Amino acid sequence: MTVSPFDHPLLSGLLGDEEAARHFSVEADIAAMLGFERALAEAEAECGVIPREAGAAIVKALAAFRPDTAKLRAGVARDGVVVPELVRQIKAAVGGQYSEFVHPGATSQDVIDTALVLRLRQVVEHIGLLLSENIVRLTGLEQEFGSRALTAMTRMQPAIPIKVADRVASWRAPLERHQQRLTEQSSRLLVVQFGGAAGTLEKLGDKGAAVRAALAAKLGLSDAPQWHSQRDALVDFAGWLSLATGNLGKFGQDIALMAQAGTEIRLSGGGGSSAMPHKRNPVKAEAVVALAHFNAVQLSGMHQALVHEQERSGTAWTLEWLILPQMVMATAAALRLAAELAGQIESLGH
Amino acid sequence: MTVSPFDHPLLSGLLGDEEAARHFSVEADIAAMLGFERALAEAEAECGVIPREAGAAIVKALAAFRPDTAKLRAGVARDGVVVPELVRQIKAAVGGQYSEFVHPGATSQDVIDTALVLRLRQVVEHIGLLLSENIVRLTGLEQEFGSRALTAMTRMQPAIPIKVADRVASWRAPLERHQQRLTEQSSRLLVVQFGGAAGTLEKLGDKGAAVRAALAAKLGLSDAPQWHSQRDALVDFAGWLSLATGNLGKFGQDIALMAQAGTEIRLSGGGGSSAMPHKRNPVKAEAVVALAHFNAVQLSGMHQALVHEQERSGTAWTLEWLILPQMVMATAAALRLAAELAGQIESLGH
Amino acid sequence: MTVSPFDHPLLSGLLGDEEAARHFSVEADIAAMLGFERALAEAEAECGVIPREAGAAIVKALAAFRPDTAKLRAGVARDGVVVPELVRQIKAAVGGQYSEFVHPGATSQDVIDTALVLRLRQVVEHIGLLLSENIVRLTGLEQEFGSRALTAMTRMQPAIPIKVADRVASWRAPLERHQQRLTEQSSRLLVVQFGGAAGTLEKLGDKGAAVRAALAAKLGLSDAPQWHSQRDALVDFAGWLSLATGNLGKFGQDIALMAQAGTEIRLSGGGGSSAMPHKRNPVKAEAVVALAHFNAVQLSGMHQALVHEQERSGTAWTLEWLILPQMVMATAAALRLAAELAGQIESLGH
Amino acid sequence: MTVSPFDHPLLSGLLGDEEAARHFSVEADIAAMLGFERALAEAEAECGVIPREAGAAIVKALAAFRPDTAKLRAGVARDGVVVPELVRQIKAAVGGQYSEFVHPGATSQDVIDTALVLRLRQVVEHIGLLLSENIVRLTGLEQEFGSRALTAMTRMQPAIPIKVADRVASWRAPLERHQQRLTEQSSRLLVVQFGGAAGTLEKLGDKGAAVRAALAAKLGLSDAPQWHSQRDALVDFAGWLSLATGNLGKFGQDIALMAQAGTEIRLSGGGGSSAMPHKRNPVKAEAVVALAHFNAVQLSGMHQALVHEQERSGTAWTLEWLILPQMVMATAAALRLAAELAGQIESLGH
Repeated sequence: MTVSPFDHPLLSGLLGDEEAARHFSVEADIAAMLGFERALAEAEAECGVIPREAGAAIVKALAAFRPDTAKLRAGVARDGVVVPELVRQIKAAVGGQYSEFVHPGATSQDVIDTALVLRLRQVVEHIGLLLSENIVRLTGLEQEFGSRALTAMTRMQPAIPIKVADRVASWRAPLERHQQRLTEQSSRLLVVQFGGAAGTLEKLGDKGAAVRAALAAKLGLSDAPQWHSQRDALVDFAGWLSLATGNLGKFGQDIALMAQAGTEIRLSGGGGSSAMPHKRNPVKAEAVVALAHFNAVQLSGMHQALVHEQERSGTAWTLEWLILPQMVMATAAALRLAAELAGQIESLGH
Repeated sequence: MTVSPFDHPLLSGLLGDEEAARHFSVEADIAAMLGFERALAEAEAECGVIPREAGAAIVKALAAFRPDTAKLRAGVARDGVVVPELVRQIKAAVGGQYSEFVHPGATSQDVIDTALVLRLRQVVEHIGLLLSENIVRLTGLEQEFGSRALTAMTRMQPAIPIKVADRVASWRAPLERHQQRLTEQSSRLLVVQFGGAAGTLEKLGDKGAAVRAALAAKLGLSDAPQWHSQRDALVDFAGWLSLATGNLGKFGQDIALMAQAGTEIRLSGGGGSSAMPHKRNPVKAEAVVALAHFNAVQLSGMHQALVHEQERSGTAWTLEWLILPQMVMATAAALRLAAELAGQIESLGH
Repeated sequence: MTVSPFDHPLLSGLLGDEEAARHFSVEADIAAMLGFERALAEAEAECGVIPREAGAAIVKALAAFRPDTAKLRAGVARDGVVVPELVRQIKAAVGGQYSEFVHPGATSQDVIDTALVLRLRQVVEHIGLLLSENIVRLTGLEQEFGSRALTAMTRMQPAIPIKVADRVASWRAPLERHQQRLTEQSSRLLVVQFGGAAGTLEKLGDKGAAVRAALAAKLGLSDAPQWHSQRDALVDFAGWLSLATGNLGKFGQDIALMAQAGTEIRLSGGGGSSAMPHKRNPVKAEAVVALAHFNAVQLSGMHQALVHEQERSGTAWTLEWLILPQMVMATAAALRLAAELAGQIESLGH
Repeated sequence: MTVSPFDHPLLSGLLGDEEAARHFSVEADIAAMLGFERALAEAEAECGVIPREAGAAIVKALAAFRPDTAKLRAGVARDGVVVPELVRQIKAAVGGQYSEFVHPGATSQDVIDTALVLRLRQVVEHIGLLLSENIVRLTGLEQEFGSRALTAMTRMQPAIPIKVADRVASWRAPLERHQQRLTEQSSRLLVVQFGGAAGTLEKLGDKGAAVRAALAAKLGLSDAPQWHSQRDALVDFAGWLSLATGNLGKFGQDIALMAQAGTEIRLSGGGGSSAMPHKRNPVKAEAVVALAHFNAVQLSGMHQALVHEQERSGTAWTLEWLILPQMVMATAAALRLAAELAGQIESLGH
């Protein structure tokens, strides 16, 4: 099934990004959840919450574990989250006396949110690289064509002569600020989620903080108090994604506008038409603009999801699932397309 | 790949709808596009635009045609639309002297927009049935429990006693108005799109209108002037989808609020928790609310896409693709979930 | 104070619409609420709910009534709605034995929602006239320049020659469909709201339906069951507003794009620049596009407000107040600006 | 006229904030623009761009200057911005030989954007204080009631016992992170805008950088390259506003939910009903939730406005004007209401 262009067999050729999509595959999702359970077993064994042997048995069982995805799907339909059924299957895989030591003190949200953060860590790295590539390419354009003349357009009307470097700087400078913002955000975003049933780790007694710290360390995340119902870091990251695509959209829009008359830009490639073989459509530029509008729309939903009822909102959480992965995809695709578009520019200015 | 919960192997257990998803599968998409090309060949043969033998040869070739989807994907990446490459493949399949009679006078947008409308016709039927089912179930609740007492809640505070029928009517009545709206809309929505390169059917001379009428008739759609850049019927339909999910969301929200204390409702089923086995979470109710918020967000993007530049906007069109299928999915899922939720209600009022 | 450009002393010169703004003035709001109370007194007197003398005394008192707006403001701060304090003041104005017969059986929402609908009736008429004016002007452009040549632009690239009439039709045809939609909607929108504390008119016994029908008739609205928590007609109307501005935005965008090179359009007027006296900016075109984007954004909030908790949601209702009046203003302003812009077109095509 | 509840004579009693509104009054707007022109005259005199006597004459004339607002309004209608007409009036006020030295090298956007930032600086201070007040009040609740018991609610169902402190922390902790974010953002937000006609300060020759630095210093802003078409700092600030109201909305929602049964919270005050005198509606809590949804909606429009065409987009800029001031108002009002709501809490937990 192929509802979303981001993973549509045909449309993903234009709108997809393979690396980003990989992090939102069901395989990556399950792997991250199993990684959580493994790290939890190790951390709880180290802290004396569960027997060392139980920890070892769980780690061993997880290494060979293959979930029954049909049952997982039915579990989601029933429970709204995959974790109860997943834990049931892991317990069965561990078997025997140690099965009761799977997942103690943890709740579904700990697994799912931490598994999300683990993948976002890779997303941040991937997107950071794509962002750098865009900056490099734009800097290259500046160096190659920066001193040429261009007609400034203000309010879509010819204004005065400027240099190519002036316009390219307006594409590049925001991306550099986005690098700075991403660094600032990451320390708040890439943190473990571990709170138990209602955020208090009530089953771990006085060992809660130690287990959480050990869990975070094993997963390569920062330690932080539980944020079950405090979604500001995730939503702020979504804002970053839309800031990024918005500025790329300005680049794409400018390219599409310049390509209309075509006297100030020369692009290689360009899309064909089924009715007019002579045309060379600025397809990548248009797609980047569309993705900017898309993310600007989606962001509203992430902010709506800040209103999380009480200790955990099924509603707001589900809304995040419907939106955040696609915002990541849109951003990765826009960054990829913008870099390719920059590479298609054979000449700027005159 | 599984970016969207609507077709995620696990999450679609809760948030998917198989029938609606089928209409947005790549198979259904290609089948609808081939249906367009076949009907076009027949219509153009009948109207004398192409030789009768060419029409027959094309129809025959299409019956056996299997596209090379890898090349289609590459075509989308290059052209922004699948049609140029698809037409290339169809021409190769027809081969010989008749290959030049494939797709004459048509443009990519004719194929894609009409193929969308063909599938929306089935979507409208499917959604209409789900809507009726919801009305039937709510009417059933009214008949069974309507005369019982309920405490009206205004501004989330206990107000005065009402009857169960009073609250159920506030769930049902909007759905009945939605039936009326859908009928009104359908005559504007379920129309053929056929305009050629820039909407003027310039290659068909004085036969444009006749071909378009014949094409529409063969496809079971109404005939209408081209609407390449006039997206109001599509956007109005998107508005209908969000109106529907919004009112279902009110139903879901009310159920979730009633289920808090649990004295005025009894629900069968309910989701389990990995940390608290005693819980019965109103999972379907929450999901319906989430889908209402989701569609309310998405609708903004469809309205942004009304600003279609000139004869055809690649940007606005791509934005539609990113949004409309998921709004349909959200609506079908919400209707399915709401009907199931109504079925879970074992008792209302006291 | 001047937070909103729609009634900002300076910016409303561009973005305002005096007639629409009048319907959202506090004077019009209070007048409509008093009109409700007067009609209610008359209806309840006729139906025997209150004594005829009481009805007459209330009508007389209302004719001379001038509210203490400082106290109304404090009332809103305290109660979230203006009605409790307004009713208190009206009762004081009526005085004596009849004061207890003010507002019986009604609740705040009856007054405010009906007062809104009364003003929307005038808005619908005003907007309908502006819409007709736009259609007339576009038809005029079609007649004057329709047979001239224009270069079709698809995906922002030159495509093939078309006629001016082809492009103008893409501006006009959606507006004609909007007329049809507005007619369809009006029967659902322009209805009385009267339900009492929780929608059941419980204080009126078996006279509820008769009072409501009489009230509706006196106010010139259709009669309908209470819709306290069923906001679909209002939200659907908001959708209409955004459909209208979206299609006007397409017109504005096209004009701004044509005005770039300026060879296919000649506009009179146009805005000046403080830095470049030679410029003639397509200010009205840009404003129309901005208003289209604005309404597309706002609409999302109206749809969020469909999720009305139980018998009445203070939250969702307040959200409507924050959004709907401005959507009306944006639409009226866009219609006014688009008509003016059409009037500025001195030449189209070549 | 009173389209927006934020400055509506009655509704602003609930939804307004006087201090924030003051910064968006037309008086504050004009004062900030005149402050820009004065500082520019001084800076250009110091740097030798204009004669010292001209600078002094302009400063003197500005001190006594009173604009003709009717003409300013007509100017906006004509030019899309107020500055051309304002500069015309200032030049007339300066008169004589020095009038030509008003505004040299600057453009409308320099004046308007810098005038906005000057007011946002005061907004940031005001909002920062309100934010601190909220943190103080929540900390007070934690100290007073933190050790009491509360029933955790997950997915709107009773879960396990927690402490009041656990829930209050989920209200407070995000606000503390918002303080950190605001500090990070401010360095990018509170910068001068000065670029001239197309961003290159082409009329100032090699003195552009010096004038800009002097201008920034005189206005108390940081110096930075022009950002005419780079709106990321403004949009990021809008994101901050919505993050803040979103977390406050979670607080408001929790209070409204707790107030339903009323066993775990006791609130003083509360709104009255015109139909049910016994009710005490959680009006401030509801308003805070409504404002959270409102800002989440608006933010989408600010992100749409990132797609700024070329050197300056009239469209995207106008869209900002329609949205940002109201987001500021919504945030200030939400912060004020949330602090008042915290003050209404007489008891939490049991």
